[in-house]
Amino acid sequence: MFVNAAYTCDCVTDGSACAQCRMSSKDKKMEETSASGEPHQHVALGGAGGEQGRHWGWMLSGIVCVNIIILGCTFVTATAHNSMNISASDLQAFLIFLILITSSWILYYTIYTARTKDAVVYKDGHAGPIWLRGGLVLFGLLSIIMDIFKIVSYAGYLECESAVKVAFPVVQLLFVFVQTYYLWFHAKDCVQLQKNFTRCGLMLTLSTNLVLWMSVVTEESIHQTTLPEYSNQTSKLSGRSLYMYKASHAHECKCSHTSCSLFQEAYYYLYPFNIEYCLFASAMTYVMWKNVGRVADEHTHHKLNFRIKDVFLGPVLGILLVVAGLATFVVYETEILKSGEDKVRKDKAVMIHYVMNIVIVTLMSVCTVIGLVIFKMDQREHVSEKNPTRSLDVALLLGASLGQFVLSYFTTLATVATGVLGYLNGLNLSWAILLVVQLGLQNVFIIEGLHREPFHDLHPGTVIVNPYSHASKGVDGLELGMGMKPSQGLEGHGHAADNGPRLWRRWILKEVCMFLLLGNVMLWIMPAFGARPQFDLSTEMNFYGFSLWASVVNVGLPFGIFYRMHSVAGLFEVFLTS
Amino acid sequence: MFVNAAYTCDCVTDGSACAQCRMSSKDKKMEETSASGEPHQHVALGGAGGEQGRHWGWMLSGIVCVNIIILGCTFVTATAHNSMNISASDLQAFLIFLILITSSWILYYTIYTARTKDAVVYKDGHAGPIWLRGGLVLFGLLSIIMDIFKIVSYAGYLECESAVKVAFPVVQLLFVFVQTYYLWFHAKDCVQLQKNFTRCGLMLTLSTNLVLWMSVVTEESIHQTTLPEYSNQTSKLSGRSLYMYKASHAHECKCSHTSCSLFQEAYYYLYPFNIEYCLFASAMTYVMWKNVGRVADEHTHHKLNFRIKDVFLGPVLGILLVVAGLATFVVYETEILKSGEDKVRKDKAVMIHYVMNIVIVTLMSVCTVIGLVIFKMDQREHVSEKNPTRSLDVALLLGASLGQFVLSYFTTLATVATGVLGYLNGLNLSWAILLVVQLGLQNVFIIEGLHREPFHDLHPGTVIVNPYSHASKGVDGLELGMGMKPSQGLEGHGHAADNGPRLWRRWILKEVCMFLLLGNVMLWIMPAFGARPQFDLSTEMNFYGFSLWASVVNVGLPFGIFYRMHSVAGLFEVFLTS
Repeated sequence: MFVNAAYTCDCVTDGSACAQCRMSSKDKKMEETSASGEPHQHVALGGAGGEQGRHWGWMLSGIVCVNIIILGCTFVTATAHNSMNISASDLQAFLIFLILITSSWILYYTIYTARTKDAVVYKDGHAGPIWLRGGLVLFGLLSIIMDIFKIVSYAGYLECESAVKVAFPVVQLLFVFVQTYYLWFHAKDCVQLQKNFTRCGLMLTLSTNLVLWMSVVTEESIHQTTLPEYSNQTSKLSGRSLYMYKASHAHECKCSHTSCSLFQEAYYYLYPFNIEYCLFASAMTYVMWKNVGRVADEHTHHKLNFRIKDVFLGPVLGILLVVAGLATFVVYETEILKSGEDKVRKDKAVMIHYVMNIVIVTLMSVCTVIGLVIFKMDQREHVSEKNPTRSLDVALLLGASLGQFVLSYFTTLATVATGVLGYLNGLNLSWAILLVVQLGLQNVFIIEGLHREPFHDLHPGTVIVNPYSHASKGVDGLELGMGMKPSQGLEGHGHAADNGPRLWRRWILKEVCMFLLLGNVMLWIMPAFGARPQFDLSTEMNFYGFSLWASVVNVGLPFGIFYRMHSVAGLFEVFLTS
Repeated sequence: MFVNAAYTCDCVTDGSACAQCRMSSKDKKMEETSASGEPHQHVALGGAGGEQGRHWGWMLSGIVCVNIIILGCTFVTATAHNSMNISASDLQAFLIFLILITSSWILYYTIYTARTKDAVVYKDGHAGPIWLRGGLVLFGLLSIIMDIFKIVSYAGYLECESAVKVAFPVVQLLFVFVQTYYLWFHAKDCVQLQKNFTRCGLMLTLSTNLVLWMSVVTEESIHQTTLPEYSNQTSKLSGRSLYMYKASHAHECKCSHTSCSLFQEAYYYLYPFNIEYCLFASAMTYVMWKNVGRVADEHTHHKLNFRIKDVFLGPVLGILLVVAGLATFVVYETEILKSGEDKVRKDKAVMIHYVMNIVIVTLMSVCTVIGLVIFKMDQREHVSEKNPTRSLDVALLLGASLGQFVLSYFTTLATVATGVLGYLNGLNLSWAILLVVQLGLQNVFIIEGLHREPFHDLHPGTVIVNPYSHASKGVDGLELGMGMKPSQGLEGHGHAADNGPRLWRRWILKEVCMFLLLGNVMLWIMPAFGARPQFDLSTEMNFYGFSLWASVVNVGLPFGIFYRMHSVAGLFEVFLTS
């Protein structure tokens, strides 16, 4: 179909002329609106050869990506299980290798596009919004600080440890710098030149980030997994990590300067930010990959300004929740560390943590239900415009929530099957069930919110020139051109008539979003900074055995943490469009 | 957009009138062609309320599905790890509960659609092709036989075992019967009534099948995983399974009739078919779910007849390969069983198995490369028509191949890191690398093949009325209506001119497909019927530790087996369209 369009248009090499030609007649425009979730509808450069080349380019880049990721996954798993034959240094050497190739490609791309005139003609207005790029820079900075701490810390071990351990943070630091610069300036590019090569390069970047993410997540999880108390030889180690225990005993390597342990403590707190950095970079790279070869106008992005003064109740209640949450979290962490063998003291700390979490989750569920009722009452249309960024957002949201779902169901089964003994198990069970409810509701809320058209103040006379339908010229343009005006006019009149309830609904939605956002921040902070109530009760550990339960927690929890981060971003967008 | 279409059409309840109205003007037709990978473009019944209701229906059914699957996954994992608190009977009780709800829904649906006039107006011609339904019936029959064997076998243990163990196969037998009947007659339905309820019901059916699949796969994997030789107490058990060992020792339960062990041996050989049955049923249910509310004409499906006489070399070479493969497989299995402590004899058997596999994989890779070259030379157009069945096929193919990829990379890393000691490790490494190459090539080949338009003999004068463009009235109809005829005519002339090379290419493609198909059958039979060379060499087990390596194999291999089955289906379709 698109091949034919290219033939009739006679535009084989010049992208901009081709786009003009496509836009010139109305039929062509309709043809372009046959948009799907796939990117392959967007370009007709190069005729049949281009069509085929694109297919091959996709598959090649996909193969590159899958192979690197699986190889990385194998490396990480092998290292995590502390096989004698493969050490952390081997993994780091592999990562350095990956990073160097990726950085070379990034430098090549940056220089190539800077030197070539009209290398990037089209930009995707939806890709790389400012909050995503801002987040990237922020997390990038924190990652760089983490790397500096690591360098200083490992420099003390240089005498007895492999030099790779120092080389890795140095290389990673440079990589973070180069990649952040690159994504800041190029995240919106719809590449038209050297398309297949660029696809492979982007997939290489994506895989490198995901492998880095896997390695950091694994290191962090192992660090946070404290050994169970009944395990041998480790009763005095409770609160310290299995990982550090192994590391210090395996090598008997002493630090040459005194501040080693201080830096080590410090850089572990920066891990969550590095994890987020990798994911942000991956998401942006993926959207760039989807946009390769896409012919899209850099249309004026409909400005959605953030005005905090519109909302009051949500942020205030949210901040109260965060403060209360932080207070109990600090109490919980310090009590667990101090309690040692004192079981009563520990149980009390765990109880406080459970109660606080149940309160947060319940309040958030109630809030989400209110938001969903508003959505149900609200007759705003669903956005049907194509948008790879949004599809990715939804997929990531749903995918990441599975981690927490799995954890909750494991807890539920273990607790129910053992007969809910004691109040702590009861609290744990309630928390697990409430989390499932909250996650389900919140997913529905965010997805509904992302798919609604933004609120805009309509006046009966100006329905047709409203900014949104102007901005999304693709699909909406088609509608307007097809005699749909009467119905839109009808809707417009309806909106104008009940502007009061509309503003009222809008206000409630904004309050709900802000409260949920802050609630998610709280639920992110707790596990990200080391709360592991999963290992404080022995129910699940006894039921599944320590190794299985530790694996489930170490795989599920990072996804749960990412879910919280990601839903903060999603809620922020829902807030803006409400 | 679709809401608006509904408004202008004024078709709120009557589906067929609405479809007619949509089809009446050319503009409407174009609007319909804005098809994407998502199903939501296909219906405009019910206006804005319908649009919203659909969204909620999707999400609700999605939530049902995710929750059942994760709960099932938790149950299966807990049972597999043989926790003391939860037994196989508990899992089976849960499965019986799921099956009973699902069966009730299926019966309700069948009776409801039979009684309601015009309950199913539209049918999807692509859904449930005859080979899929035929396969379903075949695997269903074999599953029923498996269940009968199970009933007879467990009836002998009734005195000392839970009655659930007999009840489960009885219920499953009835379920297989009901579900096969239902899918045979309803797989093509595009449901228009009680849409949200049907969506949830279909998702319930899908989840039940997937949970059943998980439980069978797990049981089968545990059955096939023999304990390593160096493990304590089990040197005399080599060749028998860990699972049976545990089962027989834990209960000391004796069978009351003599043929128990015979039936037990027999039904384990039928497990692979039950696994496939669950997957076939899941795939068909998923397509039905995607088709709920879809307004599609039951267009005459372009008949692609299967003529085996067109091909000769491929099938002959393929059958030779299968015969040789079966011979070495039988030798390998019997030698491994007989060898016992005789390491030299065992190594020889393993070597034969490796060499045979390397030969098969190499030949298949060469064949695939030939096929890909033909595709590259071939200028057939890519199909742009929407087709949920095909999208699912591709996704399943890629997803399932990950299992084998992971296994191969684990082997590669372990073998390389330990320095490729001995000829067996060398063979193992070559096999792993060749498998990755073969999988990559084959995936590209099948995806390319599925996306090509079928070959049809064109004559210059009859370009416009060729059967395919008539059949796919959506997108192709648009093309023809948009002045694309010149280019099509051009292509048609080009084809007619080089009809000789075309037929020649077509013939080679068919031969390649048949050979690959038989090769995949062979590679399916070997692991499905118990070849586990992964546990014959100790390299990986020593490198990763037995538990990690067993988990990787037990998760990865079932996907690998499914991949082979599924690619047979894919290759058969490529054969038909070539």
